[in-house]
Amino acid sequence: MAKRKMVYLFEEGSAEMRNLLGGKGAGLAEMTRLGLPVPPGFTITTAVCNSYYKLNKNFPSGLRQRVREALHSVEEKMQRKFGGTERPLLVSVRSGARVSMPGMMDTVLNLGLNDSTVSSIINETGDPRWGFDTYRRFVQMYGNVVMGVEHSVFEEILSESKRVRGIKLDTELNEEELSVLVGRYKEKIRELTGREFPEDPFDQLWNAIGAVFESWNNRRAITYRQLNNIPEEWGTAVTVQSMVFGNMGEDCATGVAFTRNPATGENRLYGEYLPNAQGEDVVAGIRTPQPINRDPSKPGLSLEEKMPDTHSELLRVKDLLESHYKDMQDIEFTIQKGKLFLLQTRSGKRTAQAAVRVAVEMANEGLISREDAILSVDPSVLDQLLHPVFDENAERRPIGRGLPASPGAASGRVVFDAAEAVKLASGGEKVILVRNETSAEDIHGMAAAQAILTATGGMTSHAAVVARGMGKCCVVGCSDISISQGSKSFTASDGVVITEGEYISVDGTSGNVYLGQLPTKAAELTGFFETFMEWADSFKRLGIRANADLPEDARIARKFGAKGIGLTRTEHMFFGEHRLPHMRRMILANTTEKRKEALESLLPYQREDFMGLFREMNGYPVIIRLLDPPLHEFLPKGRDEVERLAHEMGISTEEIVSRTEALRELNPMLGHRGCRLAITYPEVYEMQYRAIFEAACELKRKENIDVVPEIMIPLVEGREEIDILRPQIDRTAEEVMGRYGMKMNYLVGTMIELPRAAILSDSIAPAVDFFSYGTNDLTQTVLGLSRDDAGRFLPEYVQMKIFPFDPFMTIDVKGVGSLVRSSAIRGKKANGKLEVGICGEHGGDPKSIEFFHSAGLDYVSCSPYRVPIARLAAAQAAIRAARTERKPRPGKDQD
Amino acid sequence: MAKRKMVYLFEEGSAEMRNLLGGKGAGLAEMTRLGLPVPPGFTITTAVCNSYYKLNKNFPSGLRQRVREALHSVEEKMQRKFGGTERPLLVSVRSGARVSMPGMMDTVLNLGLNDSTVSSIINETGDPRWGFDTYRRFVQMYGNVVMGVEHSVFEEILSESKRVRGIKLDTELNEEELSVLVGRYKEKIRELTGREFPEDPFDQLWNAIGAVFESWNNRRAITYRQLNNIPEEWGTAVTVQSMVFGNMGEDCATGVAFTRNPATGENRLYGEYLPNAQGEDVVAGIRTPQPINRDPSKPGLSLEEKMPDTHSELLRVKDLLESHYKDMQDIEFTIQKGKLFLLQTRSGKRTAQAAVRVAVEMANEGLISREDAILSVDPSVLDQLLHPVFDENAERRPIGRGLPASPGAASGRVVFDAAEAVKLASGGEKVILVRNETSAEDIHGMAAAQAILTATGGMTSHAAVVARGMGKCCVVGCSDISISQGSKSFTASDGVVITEGEYISVDGTSGNVYLGQLPTKAAELTGFFETFMEWADSFKRLGIRANADLPEDARIARKFGAKGIGLTRTEHMFFGEHRLPHMRRMILANTTEKRKEALESLLPYQREDFMGLFREMNGYPVIIRLLDPPLHEFLPKGRDEVERLAHEMGISTEEIVSRTEALRELNPMLGHRGCRLAITYPEVYEMQYRAIFEAACELKRKENIDVVPEIMIPLVEGREEIDILRPQIDRTAEEVMGRYGMKMNYLVGTMIELPRAAILSDSIAPAVDFFSYGTNDLTQTVLGLSRDDAGRFLPEYVQMKIFPFDPFMTIDVKGVGSLVRSSAIRGKKANGKLEVGICGEHGGDPKSIEFFHSAGLDYVSCSPYRVPIARLAAAQAAIRAARTERKPRPGKDQD
Repeated sequence: MAKRKMVYLFEEGSAEMRNLLGGKGAGLAEMTRLGLPVPPGFTITTAVCNSYYKLNKNFPSGLRQRVREALHSVEEKMQRKFGGTERPLLVSVRSGARVSMPGMMDTVLNLGLNDSTVSSIINETGDPRWGFDTYRRFVQMYGNVVMGVEHSVFEEILSESKRVRGIKLDTELNEEELSVLVGRYKEKIRELTGREFPEDPFDQLWNAIGAVFESWNNRRAITYRQLNNIPEEWGTAVTVQSMVFGNMGEDCATGVAFTRNPATGENRLYGEYLPNAQGEDVVAGIRTPQPINRDPSKPGLSLEEKMPDTHSELLRVKDLLESHYKDMQDIEFTIQKGKLFLLQTRSGKRTAQAAVRVAVEMANEGLISREDAILSVDPSVLDQLLHPVFDENAERRPIGRGLPASPGAASGRVVFDAAEAVKLASGGEKVILVRNETSAEDIHGMAAAQAILTATGGMTSHAAVVARGMGKCCVVGCSDISISQGSKSFTASDGVVITEGEYISVDGTSGNVYLGQLPTKAAELTGFFETFMEWADSFKRLGIRANADLPEDARIARKFGAKGIGLTRTEHMFFGEHRLPHMRRMILANTTEKRKEALESLLPYQREDFMGLFREMNGYPVIIRLLDPPLHEFLPKGRDEVERLAHEMGISTEEIVSRTEALRELNPMLGHRGCRLAITYPEVYEMQYRAIFEAACELKRKENIDVVPEIMIPLVEGREEIDILRPQIDRTAEEVMGRYGMKMNYLVGTMIELPRAAILSDSIAPAVDFFSYGTNDLTQTVLGLSRDDAGRFLPEYVQMKIFPFDPFMTIDVKGVGSLVRSSAIRGKKANGKLEVGICGEHGGDPKSIEFFHSAGLDYVSCSPYRVPIARLAAAQAAIRAARTERKPRPGKDQD
Repeated sequence: MAKRKMVYLFEEGSAEMRNLLGGKGAGLAEMTRLGLPVPPGFTITTAVCNSYYKLNKNFPSGLRQRVREALHSVEEKMQRKFGGTERPLLVSVRSGARVSMPGMMDTVLNLGLNDSTVSSIINETGDPRWGFDTYRRFVQMYGNVVMGVEHSVFEEILSESKRVRGIKLDTELNEEELSVLVGRYKEKIRELTGREFPEDPFDQLWNAIGAVFESWNNRRAITYRQLNNIPEEWGTAVTVQSMVFGNMGEDCATGVAFTRNPATGENRLYGEYLPNAQGEDVVAGIRTPQPINRDPSKPGLSLEEKMPDTHSELLRVKDLLESHYKDMQDIEFTIQKGKLFLLQTRSGKRTAQAAVRVAVEMANEGLISREDAILSVDPSVLDQLLHPVFDENAERRPIGRGLPASPGAASGRVVFDAAEAVKLASGGEKVILVRNETSAEDIHGMAAAQAILTATGGMTSHAAVVARGMGKCCVVGCSDISISQGSKSFTASDGVVITEGEYISVDGTSGNVYLGQLPTKAAELTGFFETFMEWADSFKRLGIRANADLPEDARIARKFGAKGIGLTRTEHMFFGEHRLPHMRRMILANTTEKRKEALESLLPYQREDFMGLFREMNGYPVIIRLLDPPLHEFLPKGRDEVERLAHEMGISTEEIVSRTEALRELNPMLGHRGCRLAITYPEVYEMQYRAIFEAACELKRKENIDVVPEIMIPLVEGREEIDILRPQIDRTAEEVMGRYGMKMNYLVGTMIELPRAAILSDSIAPAVDFFSYGTNDLTQTVLGLSRDDAGRFLPEYVQMKIFPFDPFMTIDVKGVGSLVRSSAIRGKKANGKLEVGICGEHGGDPKSIEFFHSAGLDYVSCSPYRVPIARLAAAQAAIRAARTERKPRPGKDQD
């Protein structure tokens, strides 16, 4: 194999060589190839960076020679000479990784200056002040980046000079003072490092290249890489480029621009510039940048007005770059003496709204295909579009910050328990439920609240999961607040105390909590969004359903495009004020008769619930999961509540305590729940079957709405449980339909949420109409990982790459995924009509959806607010899969 | 296909036709074929029974004809006529299923008698008293079995007769009185049933056959079938046999005999007989049977003395049957007028001791092969041989009965907590630990006690599992006792109160609890046992190791033939009086430094523990599992204990409570445990590595014992954890061995106890030296079933056949088993040197061992006391597998 080329002139590289040249180098090369005005230069590859570390921080042999050759080529193009006494060449030395790591690594500008070359450029420009200022900037930057002297050391010397002169701005320093500063800087460097500031431009160059390589392993960069999953072995490239100057006079400028508006997506050049300035001045933030387009609302003359020709040229660059990159670009430019130079181009970051609009418009403009438009938007950003936000102009006083568990923005009166939330809300008040943590008992309070705020818990805590399911704004783990249940108040940061009934505002997208009521803006789903989602739907193969327990949820789900309900958790229906007492009577019953009596009282409620859902979904499938959680979840926990219940039921508190104790489980996740309840107490499910079929019949009779109920049995181990329960369902169906004199179809399916059920899928499949993978529980059992307890070590597991992602957020493809895939294949083989879907939290996660597509599932079901995300992710999965198939794959016969 | 034959004459059947003819019919047929003296008869098949039910309790067409033909053949052989007025033929009608169902179904003797035939037999025998007694017995039996009149009705009439006569014994009734009785019986039957007693012998016969078929579905039979897993569709056969009489005079007798002694196995005919009696008299228990062999210690003349010729004939029968059946037989016989008739033969039930001796001796006699000898003993019965038993002659007063959780017999003083147990035991007292339930904190008290008795819990409760592991006598779930911790006493059945310090005796084999001290007899392992186990070892392929945490356990394991330790649970080592405080200090430490300090104090103990185990196993492999349970298991639970600990550690109780609260888990089974502890707190395992290698080096240096430590990492998810932990182990090994100037081999392996690890076996295998399947946890995760909580529904699951067995006792082959099998195959394929074994409770279960053999595992590891059972089960598995392989299997090409 030929030795890899170590150095590429810009004209030798291209956009495809990003891995070797870094993002910056590749962009400059590509623009050079396009004939755009790029100051000449070259890039030392990322491979050299790796060699540098392998050689114990030495340059590989031959590199110096290659760099000299490249530099020579640049000299020729510029008609200048590096270190030359006439027309000396100055260069910048910049880092550049495959992906942008803003501000993480180092840059040296104006390199090549020394006491001799500075005179030459002063002679050449006739501007000694500019010359010495440029020299001073170089020594300061080099001293810091290459020689390791703290930035503040130079700032101090500079301040001292200004103090002596009695001035405030750098620009007020004259050429002599700047020249003296250069000397002081160098002296200080010598004093602190024991080394001379190098006069030889080649020494400067090599030291700078080494310093850039070494900045790949500075602490900031390492942290950034860890946070962003960037492998160490990628390395950084070094780009050496001839300097151009935006600070040589009023016909000079420097600026940044987006080819479209990054906030709205509008197809119009958007950006800012500073006349007579060097790039770093923009960053320093001392001067206020001026707009590129004419904009009376902003201060300063626009570039359009000030330099109309250059502005026109920029517009041509915009078109060229967009038609070339097929994407909105973020560019840096410098104007030297009226001439435009491009210093960087990269894909522009944008808001969700902009992303959607850019995608749709670029496709309509014929720049990209609809497929590429769909692929260009990260599904998870859509979340921003679906929830209300606080008016950005409102004044706000932050009082704490937690984890942004469920997006949205809401204000309301603080309440500390679920019952109070329900009470106030039913009186028309907006409330925020504030708790240390929530449990199943709080569900109704959560439903009644505008938002939920908890002091503890993580992104998969009860509050977070339930709130996302409800599409309700939620902030969890807000350790800034400390709740006192006794005084019904909480203390927030800065010691501010909020008591029950006071207003707060919660931002579930950022995790911020504010004092008082903030005005909100509703989510605007523009026409671009609708067009975009229509396109997505035309590509996707997976069906998208929603998890919904209440008619309101179902309505939102339909609005967002769900084609059915993939999971209704019936247990959430038992927590209502009028229902819980019956549920508890049922659980505390000591005979089957008493249990049946209590169930009889629950039946009308259940029937109403189902009618509401069926009505809302108007013919779309509704999957109803039979009672799943262990019964002890419905019993009261605190002493007070136990006493109240005992009083209500006319039994002793001891009886309740002892029954609760008897139901207590060491590992409730693996306990007496799901269809195990129906094996021991068949009457519980019998009531539910009846409520489902009666609801369907009622609705058909009274409102002529057709329903095909789909009944789902949870926590099945194998075929045997189906063989026991299905005949009970069939019997009830026949009985109810007979009573109504009707015939209707219904389906019976099973959750696959235990490894055993997944393993025995081929035996289960012929006995059911559908499978729904409960990937939450399947993850818990396959990984032996309690979602409630994993917080103590799961972060380490993810950080140490034992798991590539949090397996409760993104499906564990290797473990859980492989079980799902083989189960789906064998299930469908054993029952050609079997429908398979998934209803765990993963149903709303784009990476997981891509996997479910590949595993051949028929649909995914997710929280209503994640439906658009799922639709987009499903479309992307289908497009990517089709492209992979189209590509010829390297087979063994081709080796 | 030809119509199945419905009726078989004895000479047409054989032993192989057991399924069709029932056990009794097949035995009689086989004896007939052997030329043994069997009264002629025939059998109606079990298939006819099924037809009878299918035809709504009607006989299939053709049956009557077949029976008449068969009866005719019997008449010819007997030179008698059924219902004839001269030499009438009398028959018995008996049920007979595939497997013996003692006393569950019905029998009618002396059938064919009526007012006319009774005269004929009286004429023939000249014994009217016998004739009428036989008639009376028939009417009574038929009236009860066929016509459904309660037995007590007849007993009342009989008693009345005796009362009137002023006599006590049936035998004192004379012929007239018996004749009158027959009339009264018939009258009463007419009165109660409204039907006449049938005079026609053919009516009698058909009604009796129908009644036997119907007895297959009487309540007793159904219950028995359910308890013994006998399918309903097996049905019962009906055997009709000509009667012979053991009650026709002093030259007549009836008896039962075993071909060898069923208690000891001694090769000598053993049994009892009654002269001048019919079979039912033996069962009635009115007369005392006499021995068959001369035996001065027993009352009554032996058959050997009374009828020496018949006795000799019986000895010939013994030899013939044993050489034919290759098994010890249990026979029934009748001697009529000096002539021997055989009425039944079947495999004889025997004690464990007898089973082993019979197997060894039959093989040595050349009757059976060693393979068959091994197969002839049920492994689970060996348990009886390994533990002490109470002297059967000792007087005993039972005070309760629970589940026999761990076999053995022990007496001692009652204590109610672990600390007290340790204290008393260290003073030389024998103690019995009595608790409601046990937890990990009680381990040391359990180890110190002679036996454990709990009021609650099942066969897989903590107490049961740990006690079995320790080979310690244990009774659990003894609901007869009610503990009062306050008064340090318990109340047992009959209200007897036992206070701390009083003696009780516990029988872990039967589940009985007795008052006071009972003398025990040690287990005697005879030469036969040793020979038998040697043979077993010569056949088995699986290696057998033991689970042992203490040197004492290891010693017992070696005595019982374990070739290594498959599992040492290091956590059990942290509960000692001197260790627990350090462990708790470690857990409560809030810095790594403090944690390391506490661990440093634990290290010498751990090292000693490992040296003890290594020394005991003297070169055999010892697998040490690193710390596994969640840390909260080590913290105190009660208020008192928390306060004591706070005082000892000089910290506040609040600190302990809050730390305990922070460690609390909702599902500890799926929580922060196993190697997850080492990912977050590496120093814990580091201490253990060091203790292991130092122990091995010390032992080599000081005692020249070679050790190959095998370190096992628990709760692994995949390759990644191994890649993090194994280098730590290697580093410690190098460091310690360097310090000792030694080199030694060691292995690193992993538990496979999570579904994910099983699924990813091919990726894990190359990184380790061995796999050990933790089938306890694997069962919990694959089935989503908490062992601690499953008691509420698992019994229903087993009873309803959702699981074929309790999956914690016998491995769930379809679910857990299929994961183990495919993991082992893929693991071995990925690493040719990989050793795979299993260390869950299933390692001591014969059915599971058969599966592990078939799955290609290398060894099983079980409690020390189950090692012989495992050795035998492994041998049987190997023999059965070899036989299956040798048999030509029906392939598709042969169809």
